[in-house]
Amino acid sequence: MFEAAELGLKLSKEEFARRDPELQSQLLALQRRLREADFPVIVIVSGVEGAGKGDVVSLLHRWMDARGLETHAFWDESDEERQRPHYWRFWRAMPAKGRMSILFGSWYTRPIVDLALKHTKRDHFDRELERIRHFEDMLVDDGALIVKLWFHLSKKAQMKRLEEDAKGRDVKLEPLTRTYSKSYDRFAKVSERALRKTDVSHAPWHIIEASNARHRDARVGEVLIERLAARLDEPPPSSGRVTVSSPAMHRAGDPGVLSAVPLDARMEDKAYRKALEEYGAELWDLAWKAWRQRITTVAVFEGWDAAGKGGAIRRVTQAMDARLYRVISVAAPTDEEKAHHYLWRFWRHLPRDGYHTLYDRSWYGRVLVERVEGFASALDWQRAYNEINSFEEQLVDHGTVLLKFWVHIDQEEQLRRFREREQSPLKQHKITAEDWRNRERWPDYERAVTDMVVHTSTDIAPWTLVPGNDKRVARIEILKTYCERLAKAL
Amino acid sequence: MFEAAELGLKLSKEEFARRDPELQSQLLALQRRLREADFPVIVIVSGVEGAGKGDVVSLLHRWMDARGLETHAFWDESDEERQRPHYWRFWRAMPAKGRMSILFGSWYTRPIVDLALKHTKRDHFDRELERIRHFEDMLVDDGALIVKLWFHLSKKAQMKRLEEDAKGRDVKLEPLTRTYSKSYDRFAKVSERALRKTDVSHAPWHIIEASNARHRDARVGEVLIERLAARLDEPPPSSGRVTVSSPAMHRAGDPGVLSAVPLDARMEDKAYRKALEEYGAELWDLAWKAWRQRITTVAVFEGWDAAGKGGAIRRVTQAMDARLYRVISVAAPTDEEKAHHYLWRFWRHLPRDGYHTLYDRSWYGRVLVERVEGFASALDWQRAYNEINSFEEQLVDHGTVLLKFWVHIDQEEQLRRFREREQSPLKQHKITAEDWRNRERWPDYERAVTDMVVHTSTDIAPWTLVPGNDKRVARIEILKTYCERLAKAL
Repeated sequence: MFEAAELGLKLSKEEFARRDPELQSQLLALQRRLREADFPVIVIVSGVEGAGKGDVVSLLHRWMDARGLETHAFWDESDEERQRPHYWRFWRAMPAKGRMSILFGSWYTRPIVDLALKHTKRDHFDRELERIRHFEDMLVDDGALIVKLWFHLSKKAQMKRLEEDAKGRDVKLEPLTRTYSKSYDRFAKVSERALRKTDVSHAPWHIIEASNARHRDARVGEVLIERLAARLDEPPPSSGRVTVSSPAMHRAGDPGVLSAVPLDARMEDKAYRKALEEYGAELWDLAWKAWRQRITTVAVFEGWDAAGKGGAIRRVTQAMDARLYRVISVAAPTDEEKAHHYLWRFWRHLPRDGYHTLYDRSWYGRVLVERVEGFASALDWQRAYNEINSFEEQLVDHGTVLLKFWVHIDQEEQLRRFREREQSPLKQHKITAEDWRNRERWPDYERAVTDMVVHTSTDIAPWTLVPGNDKRVARIEILKTYCERLAKAL
Repeated sequence: MFEAAELGLKLSKEEFARRDPELQSQLLALQRRLREADFPVIVIVSGVEGAGKGDVVSLLHRWMDARGLETHAFWDESDEERQRPHYWRFWRAMPAKGRMSILFGSWYTRPIVDLALKHTKRDHFDRELERIRHFEDMLVDDGALIVKLWFHLSKKAQMKRLEEDAKGRDVKLEPLTRTYSKSYDRFAKVSERALRKTDVSHAPWHIIEASNARHRDARVGEVLIERLAARLDEPPPSSGRVTVSSPAMHRAGDPGVLSAVPLDARMEDKAYRKALEEYGAELWDLAWKAWRQRITTVAVFEGWDAAGKGGAIRRVTQAMDARLYRVISVAAPTDEEKAHHYLWRFWRHLPRDGYHTLYDRSWYGRVLVERVEGFASALDWQRAYNEINSFEEQLVDHGTVLLKFWVHIDQEEQLRRFREREQSPLKQHKITAEDWRNRERWPDYERAVTDMVVHTSTDIAPWTLVPGNDKRVARIEILKTYCERLAKAL
C-alpha cells in the first residue's frame, strides 16, 4: 500500500510558485461556497513522523480564510477529557455545518500507537477500527465530508528528515519521535492495516508522498479541492446503509414487549414510604462511594406523556447530594446543536468520572418523536439504532453505569392524568394541546417504543420497563434498579 | 450582622406541611413566567458548614421544574478550570436568559476560605471583594437577577449539627469540615466582612437562620418568590452606573491618539523578508518556551475594514506550531451566545495554560460597531469600558500575556484597497455593501476608536497602534511586539 507512495515525486520551486496562488484561489472560492452549505468538513492530518504534518496545517491556514476554519490537535489530553469516553474530545472538535475542522491527530492515533508499542493486542485494535468505521459512517450519513490525509515517507527519507529537523529549530517536542523512528517497520505495518480496514468509498484515504515538501503541499491542495468541489456539486446519494441490531426478534403484529409490563402492580402508601426511605438512604451512600471510586452514571428517563418521569427523577435526585448529579431536560435544540449531528448535544453533557447525569428524555427522541412526527427520515431513524448502540457501548466501555428507564402507563391512565392536570392549578401548565395530539398517535408511538426496546436493549445496556400506572410502584422500581446497578459496579 | 439571625425562629411540622405546597405552586408559576422572560436568575447558596445547604438545594429541585434549572457545585476544580482565570468556571455556569442556575459555592468561597485560613492577606481579600462587586454589577446591568442566600448557624448550633451529621449518614465528604468548625469565629468575621462589602440594593444578601430546618426551608421559598415576582413584575430601572476609567485623558475635538500613528512609515521588500524570517524564527522558539512554562497568550486584532488584520494574523500563526494556537473569528453570535452577557462568548474560548488564542475582532465590538450602529445603548457601551478592563485584568492576573493591536490606515488607503479588492477575483468576496456603508461613518468610528484606546489602554493591557498603510510595516510591527511581550513574560 505504502510502496505506491514512494515514487520520488518532486515539484520544482517555479512550478510550485505558479500553482500556489491557483490552489489558494480555488480553495477560497470553495470555502465561500461551503459557508452556505449544510454539511461540515473534517480534514484528518495523519501519517509518519517527520512528514511535515505541522507544515501542512500551517499551509492550509495560509491558504484559507480563518473564518469557519479551526484546527484541533489531540496530543495534550486534559483531565476533563480523560474522565469521559475517549471520543468525547473528538465530539468537542466537530465542526458545525458550513465549517471546517482540521484534526491534527485523530481517532486513528491512539489505536495505532497502542498496537505498535504493544500496549494492546490485535483483537482490541481491530475492534477500535470497527468503531472508527462506524463513527465515520455515522458522520458521513449525517452529511459530513471527511478528507483523510496520510503523509508517507520511506524509512530512509524519514531518518533523513528527522535528523535535519533536529539540527534546525527547537524540536524534541514529541517524546515519541525516537520511538517511532526506531520502530518504523512496526508502525508501517500497523498503519497499513488501519488504513486498509478504514479505506471506504465514502471516506477514502489519500496517501501523500511527503519526501518532497512542494509536491506534498500541492497534492494536499489538489485533494482538498477535488473532494470539496465534488461534495459541493453533488450531494452523495443517501447510503441506505441500515443494519438493525436484531430484526428477527420482532415481528409486526406481535403483542410486543410492552404488553408484558405488569401495569396492575400496586403498592400501599406505608410500604411505599418505607421503601422510599430505605432505597433513598442506600442510594445516598452508593452515590458517595461511586464518587470516591470515580464510577460515572448516566440515566435515561423515557416514557409516555404524564407517565411520571419528572416525579421519578426527583425521587432519585433527592437521594443524592446536589453536587453529584445534573438533570438535563431535553427540549428543542439550540441552533448550535442543530448544526451538529443529533448525538452531539448528548455528548456535550456527559458527566465527569464519579458524577451522574440524568436525561429527562434523551437521544431516544430520534427513534420516538422524530420517527413518529416525521422529523427524521426513515433512513435516519433506522440508522439511529446502531448509532445509539455504539454510543452506549462507548459509555459502558469507559466504565459508566448506564440506566435506561421506560415508564409505561396505559391509555386509560394517561387520560385520567390529563384530566386531573387540567383541573389542578398546580399542574395545568403540564398539559398542552400537543399532549392531546400525541395521544391520538398512541399506536404509532407504541410501535416505535417496541422497536426501540427490541433494537437497543442490549446486554450491556438493557432497558428497564417500569410499570407506571401506580406512581409509587414506578418510583420504587426505579430507585431499586438504580441502587442495584450502581452496587454491582462498585 | 449575624447576631440578628440568631433568633431561634422555628416552624412547626404542621405549619410547614401547610406552607410547602403553597410555596411550590408559587415557585412553579414564577418559573413558567421566567421561561418567557429575557433575563437569567442566579441563586447563590452559601453559608456556614452544617447549615444544610445541600438540603436546600435538594428542596429547590423538589419544588421546581428541572427544565430551565441547573445546579453547579464549585468544589472539584478540573485542570481545564485551573488553567484559566478563576472566573472561567463561573462563566461556564452562567444561565441563559429565561433559565435559573443554583450555585452551590460561588465566587465568594475562595476569598473567604483563603483569608480565614490565612492563605492570603486582607488587602488581597478586599481586592477580591471589589472584583465580586464589579462582577455582580455587570450581571445585574445586563438584566440578571441575583439572589444571594447566606445560611447562618450560631457556634453552638453548628457544633451540634456537625456532630449529628457525623453520627448518621456517610459524611466526611468535606475535608475542611473540621477546620471550619475549629475556626468558627475567624470564618464568621471574614464572612461578615464579605457580606457587608457586597450587600448592595441591586444584589442584596439574605441571611437565613438555619438552626431550624423547616424555618430555613420556608424562608428560602419566600425569599425566592419575593425576588422573582418583583423582578418579573417590574424590570429594574437602568442603573445608570457608568464609571469611565479616565475621562480626563480625552477631550472631544482633540486630534486624538490615532493622529499620532506614523502612517507614512514604509519598508523595503528585502528588509521585510529578512525581518519576517527573523521574527518568525524567534516567535517559533518563544511559543514553544511559553508552552513549556505554561504561559498563555491572548491577542486581540482590531482595525479598519481592509486594514490587513487577516494577513497580519496569518504571519503570526505561520510562525507557530499549529497545535499551539487557535484563531477565533468573531462573527454574528449564535443563539446560545445571544442569550448570555456579551463577554460570555469570549470567556468561552479562552486558551488553556501554554496556548494562544488570537481573536480576529473581539469584545471591543461592543464599543466600536455596536456603539456606532446603535446595537448597544449608550449606557451599555459606556459601561463596557469598565467591564472590559476588569475582564482583561483577570487575564493578566492569571499570568496571561495580553496583546491588543489596532491596525490603522487612513481613508485614502482604505479606498484604494476597496477598489483593488473589487477588481481582484481572489479578493472580490472580501468587499461588501456593508464595507462601503461603514466607510461613510468613518468619523463616528474614529471617535469610537479614540475613546476605546483612551479608556482601555491600561498599564497592564496597553493598546499597540499599528501603522498599516504599508502592510509590511504593520506585519513586522505586530510580530516584533508579539515577540517582545512574550519574551518579557518568560
